[in-house]
Formats: sequence, structure tokens, C-alpha cells
Amino acid sequence: MDAGTRIEEALATAIAAVEDPSAPPGLAAAVRHAVFPGGARIRPRLCLAVAQACGDDAPPVTDAAAAAIELLHCASLVHDDLPCFDDAEVRRGRPSVHRQFGEALAVLAGDALIVLAFQALVRVAETSPLRLPALLLVVGRCAGAPAGIVAGQAWECERQVVLADYQRAKTGALFVAATVAGAVAAGAESDPWRAVGERLGEAYQIADDIRDVVAHPEEIGKPVGRDAVLDRPSAARQLGLHGAVTRFEELLGNAAGAVPACAGAAALRALIQSEAARLLPKNLARRAA
Amino acid sequence: MDAGTRIEEALATAIAAVEDPSAPPGLAAAVRHAVFPGGARIRPRLCLAVAQACGDDAPPVTDAAAAAIELLHCASLVHDDLPCFDDAEVRRGRPSVHRQFGEALAVLAGDALIVLAFQALVRVAETSPLRLPALLLVVGRCAGAPAGIVAGQAWECERQVVLADYQRAKTGALFVAATVAGAVAAGAESDPWRAVGERLGEAYQIADDIRDVVAHPEEIGKPVGRDAVLDRPSAARQLGLHGAVTRFEELLGNAAGAVPACAGAAALRALIQSEAARLLPKNLARRAA
Repeated sequence: MDAGTRIEEALATAIAAVEDPSAPPGLAAAVRHAVFPGGARIRPRLCLAVAQACGDDAPPVTDAAAAAIELLHCASLVHDDLPCFDDAEVRRGRPSVHRQFGEALAVLAGDALIVLAFQALVRVAETSPLRLPALLLVVGRCAGAPAGIVAGQAWECERQVVLADYQRAKTGALFVAATVAGAVAAGAESDPWRAVGERLGEAYQIADDIRDVVAHPEEIGKPVGRDAVLDRPSAARQLGLHGAVTRFEELLGNAAGAVPACAGAAALRALIQSEAARLLPKNLARRAA
Repeated sequence: MDAGTRIEEALATAIAAVEDPSAPPGLAAAVRHAVFPGGARIRPRLCLAVAQACGDDAPPVTDAAAAAIELLHCASLVHDDLPCFDDAEVRRGRPSVHRQFGEALAVLAGDALIVLAFQALVRVAETSPLRLPALLLVVGRCAGAPAGIVAGQAWECERQVVLADYQRAKTGALFVAATVAGAVAAGAESDPWRAVGERLGEAYQIADDIRDVVAHPEEIGKPVGRDAVLDRPSAARQLGLHGAVTRFEELLGNAAGAVPACAGAAALRALIQSEAARLLPKNLARRAA
């Protein structure tokens, strides 16, 4: 089964509880809207790729870890889009969850997605009880405080912010979780994978900043130019477009270089480079690929 | 150590991560405001009481379970108080979290509390890895969908609701989790404890409805008469005050009767009866006690 199919199936399994006939139908619809159809699924793809590079000896565990990380990502998008944060009307080319279902169900859909992420991991207990505590630690850390996505979002409410801390929590934490959880799910030593996730998270943040400046709204499924409107820090605004693309390429090289020795190291390095093209707007992609 | 001290210490330990100096201070303050000072702590007290009735052979596990359940309760209060739900200005005699810290931090504090609840359980892995999966299952079930507190709250967004399903999810789930998790934490057979939690959850719901009609705002730390204003279903409105008090006493008797044979059964039954006085407004308490 290819990675894309594995991820969609793992996500469908992970949200099944909320689609039970006894659950409130509005909540089920809001959760489904938040998860399907997805974006690039870049974090679960990364998790699977790392697990495969490490042998992927327990695929259900890998799938659960990948699903948990993507569900947390979806939860953060739903809550970040709320009127009290970005007040985003459009996400992935469709109305954001609160626009479609109202604010109340958007708050609850985000809550449900956080719970579902942890519940996905509980299923691992049957297949591989010894890997469960480490996976819970990784997923909890990338979700909460002091350095997970909730903390990252909360830095936006502070007057004084260290930009690197903010981006590390808001964007980097899930990339680190993807690489580390991929290794843990495959029973491999996870420490060396942290640096790979950190570099990729930084590269992704820069690509996101670049897309906000030069992409077309149809291409990324949301409005562009938001960083300037909301006066958010941005690598493209800070380094200029050329400087940002150069930094992006440098970080990708660093990430590939940080991949530790393992059976699938060469394939993973190639994948990192080829995925780069998907991160930049089409008019810049050739240059970075 | 008495139960109250154990619970406050377990909660302080459970939220320590969000109070790390590297975490955003606004989020830390909002989470603390949501958790301390607490209300009656009735769910974690119940969890401890059941564990003690079953021998409480692993107190750190019991403490983690009790803390997780109370954190989920606090999370639901913070999100339920938001303007898109009850728009409550006051909670436990103080400004609600969004009134004190703004909506954005209230959404994030609720999110952080859900994550912290699961993280509290992860610590159990060191002491008692074999009890971890069952505790995660219990806590996940009472939190999410189809029948946990998030689902319960989501029923408020539906046009057609079966009242019993709504109350079972919104109020009952955490009481069931408290009794079942108490038993699991102490390594006891948990199934018989479900009925005890169900009866107590129903009794609590009725006491809440009664308090909304006859208590003074200072006594319960929030406005009264909200059920009538928001046209919410209420046992006091449905059965009349006398009928509601009678039903409350009946359910307490059923709960005490459902306590399975165990070392501390008699003490637990006595505790259930004595705690009843705390649930009703002072002007009715003597009657029910």
C-alpha cells in the first residue's frame, strides 16, 4: 500500500469514534470537514518515511503515530482559523470549519481532534505496548506546553516574543514529532532524528512565508499576503525572496545531512529533496528542486 | 495525606509543564486560573475514594487518574464558558477565563488542559505500565466522542436531542470515568464500578438543576436561574423541586447499593451519603443528608 493510502486509511480509522451513529452528527461532520480532504499530509508522510527508513517493523504503530500527528495539525488549523485568532474564512480551498459549522462546533471539533489523536495511540497498546509510553511522550510534547503547538499559538498573545521560540513551537514541534515518532514506531533509536525534524520544520516555515508572498490563492487554498496584513514575522519579509529561497535550500541540505545511518537513509535523503518542489510555489519550484 | 491535599498536589504536578519558564506566561496564567482554586473537586475525590475502597496499592497511579479527570472537567468549563456557548462571565466566584485573559487564551487554555490530562497519565507508565492502556481508554472515552464531554457539549448544537444521551455524555461520562479509573488505578475489576458512576452522575446533574433554581449566587460562585433563561432542560423544571429532591435521594441510594463487595465498601457508602449534603443548597441539605 502506498504512503498516501496508508495515511488516509489511518485517519479514517482514527476518527471513526466521532462518526459513530450515537455521536452528535454536527460534531462528526465538522471533524470530517477538518480532516478530509487533506492538504499535503506532509507531517504523516514524513513520519512514515522515517519509519520506513528504520525498517517499519510494526506498520499499525507507524500508522497510528502518523494519524495522531496529522490530527493534532488539523486541530490547530481549526482553532487558529477561529475569529479570536486569524478569523480565516477559507482553508484548503473550502470554508473554514467555523464558517461552515459555526464557532461552537469549531471549538469542539478541535477539542475532539486532540482527544482522537491520543486515542489513536491507545490502539498501539495491543500491537506494541512497549512503544506506547514513548509515543505518548512525543505526541504530548509536540501538542502542549512549554514547546508544542498550543504554546506556539499562545506566543501570538504575548507582547514580547523570541521569534525562534515561537516558530519552533508553532511549526517545528510537529515536524520533530513526525521524525521522532517515526523512529520510535519502528523501534529505532529516536534521538538522532530530532535534528532532521528541526531542520525540515524550519525549511517548511520559510516555504510557508515564501508562499504567502508569491503564491496564487488557488494554489495554496487560502488567501495570500496575510503576513503583511497581520504584521506577522516572516522570513520572506526579513531576508527578501532571494535570501529566503537560499536559506530554504540550505536547511533542506542540512536535514538530508542529519539523516543517521540506517537501511533506508539514501531513499529518505532523495525523498527530502524531491518533496522540496511541493513546498514552494510553482513559479519558484524548479529553482529549489 | 488527606484526599484534598493529594488532589491539589497531583493537579499542581500535572500542570507544571505549562508553568515552565520557557512557556508563554499568559497561557500558564490562564491554565492556573482554570484549575486553582478549584470547586468541590468532586470527581477526583470520587476517583480517590473508589481507589481507596479497592486498596489503592499504587497511589501515584490513582493521583494521575484523578488529576486527568479533573483537568478534563476544567477544560470543559473553560470552553463551555466561551461567548459562542454560555458566554459566562463568572465561574467559581471569579471572572471566567475568557473574561480575565481573552478568548484566544481561553481556547488555548482548554486545549492545553486536554493535552495535560493525557500527559498526566503518561507518567503512570513508569510506576505501573500495565495499567496505562486501560486508564487511557477510560479517560479518552469520557473526554471525546461518541459519549464523552465534547460530544455532550456538541449535543447542544443539535436541534433534536435525547435528553438522557446529552446528560449522560455531558455530565455522566466524567463520573463514570472517576469510578472506573479509580478501580483501574488500584488494579481492581472495573466493570462493577460503572453503575456507581452512572447513578452518581445522574444525581449530580439533578443537584445542579436544583441549585440553579434555589441556591444563592454567592453559594455556587456563578449566576442562578440560567436554565430558565437559556431554556435548558432541567429536572427541577420537569419534576418540580420536591420531585427532584426525591429523585436525587433515590439515585444516591442506588449508587450506594451498586458499590461492589470490596475492602472499603462500607466506608465508601457512608462517604457517598455524607457528600450528598455538599451537593444541595444549604437550605435543602438537611433534608437530603
